[in-house]
Amino acid sequence: MVSAPDLTLVLGGARSGKSRYAEGLVTALGGPRVYIATARIWDDEMAERVAAHRGDRGPGWTTVEEPLDLTGALRRHAADGTGVLVDCLTLWLTNLLMAEADVESQTAALVAALAGLPGRVVLVSNEVGLGIVPDNALARRFRDHAGRLHQAVAAVAPRVVLTVAGLPIFAKGNAP
Amino acid sequence: MVSAPDLTLVLGGARSGKSRYAEGLVTALGGPRVYIATARIWDDEMAERVAAHRGDRGPGWTTVEEPLDLTGALRRHAADGTGVLVDCLTLWLTNLLMAEADVESQTAALVAALAGLPGRVVLVSNEVGLGIVPDNALARRFRDHAGRLHQAVAAVAPRVVLTVAGLPIFAKGNAP
Amino acid sequence: MVSAPDLTLVLGGARSGKSRYAEGLVTALGGPRVYIATARIWDDEMAERVAAHRGDRGPGWTTVEEPLDLTGALRRHAADGTGVLVDCLTLWLTNLLMAEADVESQTAALVAALAGLPGRVVLVSNEVGLGIVPDNALARRFRDHAGRLHQAVAAVAPRVVLTVAGLPIFAKGNAP
Repeated sequence: MVSAPDLTLVLGGARSGKSRYAEGLVTALGGPRVYIATARIWDDEMAERVAAHRGDRGPGWTTVEEPLDLTGALRRHAADGTGVLVDCLTLWLTNLLMAEADVESQTAALVAALAGLPGRVVLVSNEVGLGIVPDNALARRFRDHAGRLHQAVAAVAPRVVLTVAGLPIFAKGNAP
Repeated sequence: MVSAPDLTLVLGGARSGKSRYAEGLVTALGGPRVYIATARIWDDEMAERVAAHRGDRGPGWTTVEEPLDLTGALRRHAADGTGVLVDCLTLWLTNLLMAEADVESQTAALVAALAGLPGRVVLVSNEVGLGIVPDNALARRFRDHAGRLHQAVAAVAPRVVLTVAGLPIFAKGNAP
Repeated sequence: MVSAPDLTLVLGGARSGKSRYAEGLVTALGGPRVYIATARIWDDEMAERVAAHRGDRGPGWTTVEEPLDLTGALRRHAADGTGVLVDCLTLWLTNLLMAEADVESQTAALVAALAGLPGRVVLVSNEVGLGIVPDNALARRFRDHAGRLHQAVAAVAPRVVLTVAGLPIFAKGNAP
């Protein structure tokens, strides 16, 4: 028997409450919870953001830092009854681009893995495509990659939300 | 008996029809209506925008200009049967940052006041977090403050909408 | 007898799947389909985007290139049982501004025509107003024009969607 994965894509803008909403989905499951942090700490601003997020999250999480091999980390940690939170896809994408990795094959591998993972998996990502076209080509390229990644993940996720002011607007599925 | 405040947060992008939608909510109440303008007029472009908004609004409004003490203005003007429109939170936030005010305590005071106001209160604000991360640190800081302010207000508002092309998408609550 | 036009406005960010969603609406009609491309090809990046979109679309489309007289093209091609896709309004707006055309009268003429067109018409446009206020005045002016255009079209369209990660969020109407 094949059942749909318990997979949620949480998109949102800056400080839209997307991480907190995603954490709530994982905590509500009631089992062990794993936080896969994709952040690479480049500077003090990033270090502060990561520390603030960790403080917000509260105790009870196992934190795994994995800037590049997200698919491998998901395969290692996803398990029946376990909640896994990935925060976030846009930082992972940034790391792939910095490393000059093959984004398309990495995305395809992630999406293929996602469809078969046990337990609850919640992926957070920044929606970055709703402003004026950026002046610089790199930002435009990033925006394009992010949009394609979101579409590919959304296609296999039974639940997709856009968070606004801390609240979910459902693009697919319903509240669990 | 404590009842929920009649409070709506109207978020939207540039020219998304957020002010017009908010005005409709206040006008529909049928009582006196007060417009709290937080704009500081820095230049001709701003002066034009303010004049155009005033023209769109039509007659029957009492206009109050209050760039900084929004909480005080709300306490003074909110009343049973009265509709109060605040346009907008992002300009108020800009004014606080320019004045080097303590944004966190000001936000906390606003949110505490909002939860207890009589009458109908509608707050308009710009959603600014859905584009590419801005190059400059001040813009990133502004974006973060705005997102936190929206989350805090949304938490006490029974109704939160994102306007798109003049239409409300409900993130919380329903049409009144 | 006057009936509502079968008109949909599909707004979305960069790579949000808006064109693909719009194509699905036209294809689902099952009749002849016309693609009105408003793109002017300025550079290689644009040429690539246009070619990629054409490849995604698949066979069975009649393509019409019309950078400026969109209203005329719609009048010529819209017909009972025919699906017409306009991709996209923001490029049309860019072309009008480049040509120093009277955007307001052109918009008014488009909206007046839209309300009376036969067949199914789907208009795609970029939502660009949800980021930080752009530094340059031209981008701010463009954003304002786009927002007003979207509001005007949405007012006569029975169906308005915001696409996120390839999925429609309905601001007005329902899935056909």
